[in-house]
Amino acid sequence: MPDNPFRGRDVISILDFTREDLEELFSHADRSKELIRRRSLEGRIVALAFFEPSTRTRMSFEAAAKRLGAATISISGEEAISVAKGENLADTIAMLDSYADAIVIRHKYEGAALYASEIAEAPVINGGDGRQHHPTQAMLDLYTVRKLFGRIDGLVYGVLGDLRYGRAASSFILGLTLFKPRHVYLISPPQLRARSEVIEVLESRGFEYNEVESLTEVLPELDVLYVTRIQKERIPDPREYEALKGSYRVTIDLLKSKAREGLKILHPLPRVDEIDFSVDASPYQAYYLQARLGVDVRIALLHLVLAG
Amino acid sequence: MPDNPFRGRDVISILDFTREDLEELFSHADRSKELIRRRSLEGRIVALAFFEPSTRTRMSFEAAAKRLGAATISISGEEAISVAKGENLADTIAMLDSYADAIVIRHKYEGAALYASEIAEAPVINGGDGRQHHPTQAMLDLYTVRKLFGRIDGLVYGVLGDLRYGRAASSFILGLTLFKPRHVYLISPPQLRARSEVIEVLESRGFEYNEVESLTEVLPELDVLYVTRIQKERIPDPREYEALKGSYRVTIDLLKSKAREGLKILHPLPRVDEIDFSVDASPYQAYYLQARLGVDVRIALLHLVLAG
Amino acid sequence: MPDNPFRGRDVISILDFTREDLEELFSHADRSKELIRRRSLEGRIVALAFFEPSTRTRMSFEAAAKRLGAATISISGEEAISVAKGENLADTIAMLDSYADAIVIRHKYEGAALYASEIAEAPVINGGDGRQHHPTQAMLDLYTVRKLFGRIDGLVYGVLGDLRYGRAASSFILGLTLFKPRHVYLISPPQLRARSEVIEVLESRGFEYNEVESLTEVLPELDVLYVTRIQKERIPDPREYEALKGSYRVTIDLLKSKAREGLKILHPLPRVDEIDFSVDASPYQAYYLQARLGVDVRIALLHLVLAG
Repeated sequence: MPDNPFRGRDVISILDFTREDLEELFSHADRSKELIRRRSLEGRIVALAFFEPSTRTRMSFEAAAKRLGAATISISGEEAISVAKGENLADTIAMLDSYADAIVIRHKYEGAALYASEIAEAPVINGGDGRQHHPTQAMLDLYTVRKLFGRIDGLVYGVLGDLRYGRAASSFILGLTLFKPRHVYLISPPQLRARSEVIEVLESRGFEYNEVESLTEVLPELDVLYVTRIQKERIPDPREYEALKGSYRVTIDLLKSKAREGLKILHPLPRVDEIDFSVDASPYQAYYLQARLGVDVRIALLHLVLAG
Repeated sequence: MPDNPFRGRDVISILDFTREDLEELFSHADRSKELIRRRSLEGRIVALAFFEPSTRTRMSFEAAAKRLGAATISISGEEAISVAKGENLADTIAMLDSYADAIVIRHKYEGAALYASEIAEAPVINGGDGRQHHPTQAMLDLYTVRKLFGRIDGLVYGVLGDLRYGRAASSFILGLTLFKPRHVYLISPPQLRARSEVIEVLESRGFEYNEVESLTEVLPELDVLYVTRIQKERIPDPREYEALKGSYRVTIDLLKSKAREGLKILHPLPRVDEIDFSVDASPYQAYYLQARLGVDVRIALLHLVLAG
Repeated sequence: MPDNPFRGRDVISILDFTREDLEELFSHADRSKELIRRRSLEGRIVALAFFEPSTRTRMSFEAAAKRLGAATISISGEEAISVAKGENLADTIAMLDSYADAIVIRHKYEGAALYASEIAEAPVINGGDGRQHHPTQAMLDLYTVRKLFGRIDGLVYGVLGDLRYGRAASSFILGLTLFKPRHVYLISPPQLRARSEVIEVLESRGFEYNEVESLTEVLPELDVLYVTRIQKERIPDPREYEALKGSYRVTIDLLKSKAREGLKILHPLPRVDEIDFSVDASPYQAYYLQARLGVDVRIALLHLVLAG
């Protein structure tokens, strides 16, 4: 491949990449079975440094690395906490850089992945940091849309839930700006609207979007509904929380009465009850596919960064 | 192999299998070294979902998978607990099903493995659930007897300890019903007798057994003594607990005065003090062999389920 | 190789080895890239039994084993604690011995590794036990000196900090006795002087050393300064602790005003603030190299013990 834009590169924000970069990634994800057969990372080590708990993202990266023949070394829950206490992050990253060929990091602080990438010689992949960046989640979300509709452009999207503190939602919205959706509805209670940093990107790119509060009003227009969880602690008043939660709860009855036939529902998972189990067996449900495709996208990414 | 009864199959209860199935398994366990050389699971991933702590069973499966060239991904202690809290088991199993080629599950609730097997397309192997089922433990226990005596039929067995709450003991007893022991003594205090579900199986199969309370009375007849632990919390009265514990404690002096020369003692381990250390160096002791053979049996099982 | 002194051998104390043994090890560490290519431990399993938390030593061994193609199985933090409580160490070691080809153990009790080596048939490698022994740390420290200076003999060493409770410092001092340093300064507060067992070894070997309290006085003479942490709980009086900590804090200003140009600073890491960050970018700093070389030394050691 003459020009692999991912080789040796840090993956910090979805905005670091162009549409063409992502299309290159997606075409590799389409061929993940072939990449697996080649075991292109045999003998390599991927460090998983999850300073914030995450089962799905960690296991998805771990499965991807191992499918390619790489080994992984992990800082696990408790250790991560005690490392975080007893040792500065710089020394920990320097240690991982000595042991591994790539570092996947998750951290609650904004900018932790960028900081790690400045210390490590090995490529650093952001597995989610702060409130805004989770680039590989956005990659797999966009890839799922492409798998479902054959394209990302020209569709109407709704992004629902906590757009202020949820990094998956923010990264998905930012990722959409690399494409040409017909329209994007940002659906949230006023307290949980998208952060100004995100809105500024939308504005500067002349992006077609609306901030709305009601799901039911916009639901009939949507091709894709991206649902995220509203955490109880974000809404101080318990009655208000219950009301909000109820108004954003996606049920099969709601979908049957309001949604387009071809609507597909994504969710980064885990969910609590923002999507009712009644939806799981319906054709609207696409979150299990999304989880599965996450491994394919991470296989493609690790391959391109380390061996492409 | 024309008819491998394990291929792609869930392993939920020892009673799902026939004597012929187990003999097929055992003959593969005999050839585990050859299976290891073939690395028949290279490129495969086995998920280890231990929602209840277990060091031995987890490590034994992990060693077996890795000997065959597979990689493993694990939900570890703390994560397992938080997954168990924040997320429904169905979503977690669906996630693992996306990432792995087989799922080994341990869970405190009866029926959890069966439930998981209904959700996952990948084969689910029960690493112990509820109070009754731990099929791979029964497989390795029976295999150990076969290694020691050349047969499982025609021997006199004693199963000692907590037959009510201990899943290893229940599964061993159920496993014995697939063979033709000469006799089985179920040795326990009245409070910890085998559950009615187990007794019904014994009755319906016309199985030769007795429920007794005294170890010393039946000890002279036994070829195999399967010892399990009595947990303190099962017996509310502390004095009663101490008396019971004492009467079921296996020491070298007791064995020398009462046991047949060829008696072999099994224990699923870990033990606390129900078998005195004085027994460890004696020819009665077979529990270290049993632990070692556990890996061979799990090598055979994973191979047959995934690659046979 | 006609005479590999490491094959199948337990690694308990640095004093179990001769200078020639270590030179053999170091020459293999020099060729670690070649060992990696050979994947000489494919199909082997290394058990990591860290009963005391350690991120660096564990990950360094794990990376080394995996670079050679071995798999690892680990008793992790919480499990290790519950194993330590519910089960005797002997049974746990016997279990690991059934599952793995080598056992790396870390334990807070002196002699735990030796005890484990008496139970296990597989080679046991001490990943640090008690207050005195951490042989692979000493190996990598000595190897780092050899890399930096081309030799270990003839140099002036300072070993700074907690020489009483710090096993890395003790093992380094003991390791130096296998070579011919020009002089060794043991720099510590009186409360944290080297243990009598260590001093006896130095005396019995007619080793050139001094115990001193002041770093600044001896700093100008040193070629190598090995820094270790002083833990707060070792010094009951908080004012005394602060004074001590301050007097042993290595800063770039101190080094520029007192140290030889070629001085190299080692530290087993993690550090708290005994070495100021200002030193990190200076030519004195050698602790990141030391961490990296740790993997090479452990690659060489695992190869020689298991496959050499």
